[in-house]
Amino acid sequence: MQNNKLRIIPLGGLGEVGKNMMAYEINDQILLVDAGLMFPDNDMLGVDYIIPDFEYLHDKSHKIVGIIITHGHEDHIGAIHHVLREIPAPIFGTPLTLGLVEVKLARNGLAGKAELRQVQAGETVQIGPFKVDFFHVSHSIPDAVGLAIGTKAGLVVHTGDYKFDHTPVDNWPTDFAKLAELSTRGVDLLLSDSTNAERPGWTPSERVIEPALDDAIRNAKGRVIIATFASLISRMQQVADASVRNKRKLAFVGTSMVDNAKMARKLGYLKVPDETLVTVEAALNLPDAQVVLMCTGSQGEPSSIIGRLSAGTNRQFDLKANDTVVLSSHPIPGNEEAVSKTINRMLRVGANVIYDSIAPVHVSGHASQEEQKLMLSLVRPKYFMPIHGELRQLKRHASLARQIGIPEERIFVAENGQVIEMEAGVVSLGERIPGGYVFVEGGAVGEMDRSLLKEREQLARAGILLINLGIDKYSNRLLEDPEIVTRGFVSAEEAETLIPAVSKRVADVIHGGGFNVEKDIVDVVRSFIFNETKRRPLVFVTMTKV
Amino acid sequence: MQNNKLRIIPLGGLGEVGKNMMAYEINDQILLVDAGLMFPDNDMLGVDYIIPDFEYLHDKSHKIVGIIITHGHEDHIGAIHHVLREIPAPIFGTPLTLGLVEVKLARNGLAGKAELRQVQAGETVQIGPFKVDFFHVSHSIPDAVGLAIGTKAGLVVHTGDYKFDHTPVDNWPTDFAKLAELSTRGVDLLLSDSTNAERPGWTPSERVIEPALDDAIRNAKGRVIIATFASLISRMQQVADASVRNKRKLAFVGTSMVDNAKMARKLGYLKVPDETLVTVEAALNLPDAQVVLMCTGSQGEPSSIIGRLSAGTNRQFDLKANDTVVLSSHPIPGNEEAVSKTINRMLRVGANVIYDSIAPVHVSGHASQEEQKLMLSLVRPKYFMPIHGELRQLKRHASLARQIGIPEERIFVAENGQVIEMEAGVVSLGERIPGGYVFVEGGAVGEMDRSLLKEREQLARAGILLINLGIDKYSNRLLEDPEIVTRGFVSAEEAETLIPAVSKRVADVIHGGGFNVEKDIVDVVRSFIFNETKRRPLVFVTMTKV
Repeated sequence: MQNNKLRIIPLGGLGEVGKNMMAYEINDQILLVDAGLMFPDNDMLGVDYIIPDFEYLHDKSHKIVGIIITHGHEDHIGAIHHVLREIPAPIFGTPLTLGLVEVKLARNGLAGKAELRQVQAGETVQIGPFKVDFFHVSHSIPDAVGLAIGTKAGLVVHTGDYKFDHTPVDNWPTDFAKLAELSTRGVDLLLSDSTNAERPGWTPSERVIEPALDDAIRNAKGRVIIATFASLISRMQQVADASVRNKRKLAFVGTSMVDNAKMARKLGYLKVPDETLVTVEAALNLPDAQVVLMCTGSQGEPSSIIGRLSAGTNRQFDLKANDTVVLSSHPIPGNEEAVSKTINRMLRVGANVIYDSIAPVHVSGHASQEEQKLMLSLVRPKYFMPIHGELRQLKRHASLARQIGIPEERIFVAENGQVIEMEAGVVSLGERIPGGYVFVEGGAVGEMDRSLLKEREQLARAGILLINLGIDKYSNRLLEDPEIVTRGFVSAEEAETLIPAVSKRVADVIHGGGFNVEKDIVDVVRSFIFNETKRRPLVFVTMTKV
Repeated sequence: MQNNKLRIIPLGGLGEVGKNMMAYEINDQILLVDAGLMFPDNDMLGVDYIIPDFEYLHDKSHKIVGIIITHGHEDHIGAIHHVLREIPAPIFGTPLTLGLVEVKLARNGLAGKAELRQVQAGETVQIGPFKVDFFHVSHSIPDAVGLAIGTKAGLVVHTGDYKFDHTPVDNWPTDFAKLAELSTRGVDLLLSDSTNAERPGWTPSERVIEPALDDAIRNAKGRVIIATFASLISRMQQVADASVRNKRKLAFVGTSMVDNAKMARKLGYLKVPDETLVTVEAALNLPDAQVVLMCTGSQGEPSSIIGRLSAGTNRQFDLKANDTVVLSSHPIPGNEEAVSKTINRMLRVGANVIYDSIAPVHVSGHASQEEQKLMLSLVRPKYFMPIHGELRQLKRHASLARQIGIPEERIFVAENGQVIEMEAGVVSLGERIPGGYVFVEGGAVGEMDRSLLKEREQLARAGILLINLGIDKYSNRLLEDPEIVTRGFVSAEEAETLIPAVSKRVADVIHGGGFNVEKDIVDVVRSFIFNETKRRPLVFVTMTKV
């Protein structure tokens, strides 16, 4: 249909933190922006990570003219291999972003399988019916971009993640001139990063952490172990610079960190002198006071290097009492408890742990309220749609937009699946498309559903009790004593008296006969157990009648 | 033994947030301070709450001369009924604290079972060998006290929870004069509240929230629903005052809130005019714009009023789009995710949700760094021991003490179970006593252990698969097809192909014979499933041989 109506379809990242993905659709052609992953909530038991639900695109693969990745963080590229398996469209990005996409694809058996189209910030690329201006934004990774997407329906600005850092690590601030130029062209709709919409003021420059890193390293008597995200390339640069200044050797630890650093160095986005960079093996053979190790685990993830160091289960080396550990990140919402436990465990070993409440060893990569208002004032859009954030952040961002004069009716707060339409520069609410959470767990994608999670929660709440019976089908008598197994329900001590009592009740039910013995057993056992323990394990009865 | 050595035994609250409990022991007599509960971590599946491990006291019940409760918050009184069942010692507290203890005991079937000894702040009471000065501290509940505990070993000051609020809700600031007087007497050891040791500056006065509450109520078009803890009596007073100022009726909702408010009113600590206070039933029949409801659920607890309102499962009334909800509390560490989800759900209904990043509707009840230093400077103790907090907060508090000049070797950072000894005013490290987590779950106390939690975690991670077999013991053949049941493992759709394949492999193993068929089945099924799904459910085989 050639109706020149643009449909903006949030497939992820709206109403949540992470797994960002947006579809722009006009005249039956579709442009995707970002393909990120999200980490599971505490109640998503067993789930590895979550990817956007792009079911909507299943029968539209041929209509997709391209996938733009705005920058190389996991919440923007982490699902790219899942998307690419179904949608073999060309991927557009800046050199570092594409380098990190390559690393990601290689690690997932898709090396060389993608058509990668390199774009430099400042360039304009026609992708099907979309004329896209890529403009530089500063963020906690180099080579990040925002997009101006021109179509026959009007001009949309999509910021991606950004902050207005005047002194970023790579000396390349957000492109004010471009934003001003777009504004004079007339922006119909602005989609802007809401992550920090609850944070007043300005986000400090990345530069503020340099003195804190220097202090941490200078005062350290032993090794310095610095944890952050594997894709925080700017932070790697700062740690490398601080290592050089303090005459220490630097080793990256862990596959993802090592791979990303290698790619970033190859492409010239990470500058570490050869004489500074050593392997972890070499580092471990140097005197402690000459070493900086950089690794993952700043979120307290149990399987990360820091997670394993804190639990005493790291293979290659252990945490020592004279180590200094720097957590150079802020807990992602939901991870506060895990991070805190990790800090406490490392303190217990005697390590000196430095985190953001002790010294400014981390700053956010996202714009705070004053920057968000500045973006709105620079771009002066007719309409506004907050993106990237939970509903609470989107609503706050909307209220900032109202403060600077955008009328309520021109602000669209949407969550995933809520289509927004634009025609001749007029924006309106479209349909809702179905969507949900797509869980990745082991080798399975999307097969997990809420009812499985519910079952797991039941299993976890009070454990299970299995009763296996062999019954003579003629006499309806037990062939032998019931076999009873429990998991996660009672301690061995408690079981000693409880299980024989359960067994007796089971025998009574069988002896009493009845229409539905299996159901009767479950009922009797459940109520007996609840009376005795006030717990409700799942009770299973299996029966062999011979 | 009459050796005049004081042993200070932290039974809870050191190295964690909550379940505060301290034992002071000298010449075979013991004084307990506080008996609180703690809420479970996200990975403590199925646990209702946690109480201090007071196993150490089991054979010493007769030596216990008293239990002092410093104030009526759950983390200080929540385990009192558990303690009292084993230790029938008199309970000392101020009138409001004892009132709230009474409410707690009554709700747990112990009404009238305790010997309650009322003390006023400012009084000195001899309890066995302990001469205790009760001094007033300001906190987010009226009638809170700190303690100066004099024994033949020296003088200890135990602050309890406190802040230096010059304009508290009840106009009764922390007793500076008493602290100064104690200082002139010479304090050997100070135990001081570390909760906010990571927070720079001063905690604002409780008063600052009054304008924010007034604004929220004045601007509300419909009902105002204010959530906080059931024991935050000062907050109740502020909401009552704001209701009066804004000419609205106030109803407390929920048993614990209603009971505590009733007790606090009876004792004169909560002043609400009769014409302002209405029942929830009456409130629901009034025009929305005349109503303030106060309830629990500020921590996003699913079973609280706010939890149920946000999920649409509250019985008495539903959340409406023109409701204004005020969350007058800050998330306890670990609850951030639950609180955030609750906020998002209520925003989705259309309610206006006000929380602390939007307006100052909450302030902490605990001293921040400058107040903690002031306490140290006022009391001028010879030795210092930070209490109430995770290790990270205790260590921060210790570093503040070093900053104001207490030498490192006179600071004792201890966690639960680490005994501190004092003899003739000299403090030293004592033994470590065993201890752990005592879980309360349903009717069971303490029977949960870590291995059960581990089993639950396994159950939750990938679910279970049960295989039940009937086998002819002579031919070793299956009597019928294996019975296979799963929970939390695969979706119904996935099971359709997977279960027959599992069944086939089971039959193959049985057909193949072997020394240990049951174990072989488990091994084969596990590895088959892992290859197919990359998941590791718990596999159980039950077998009836006939």
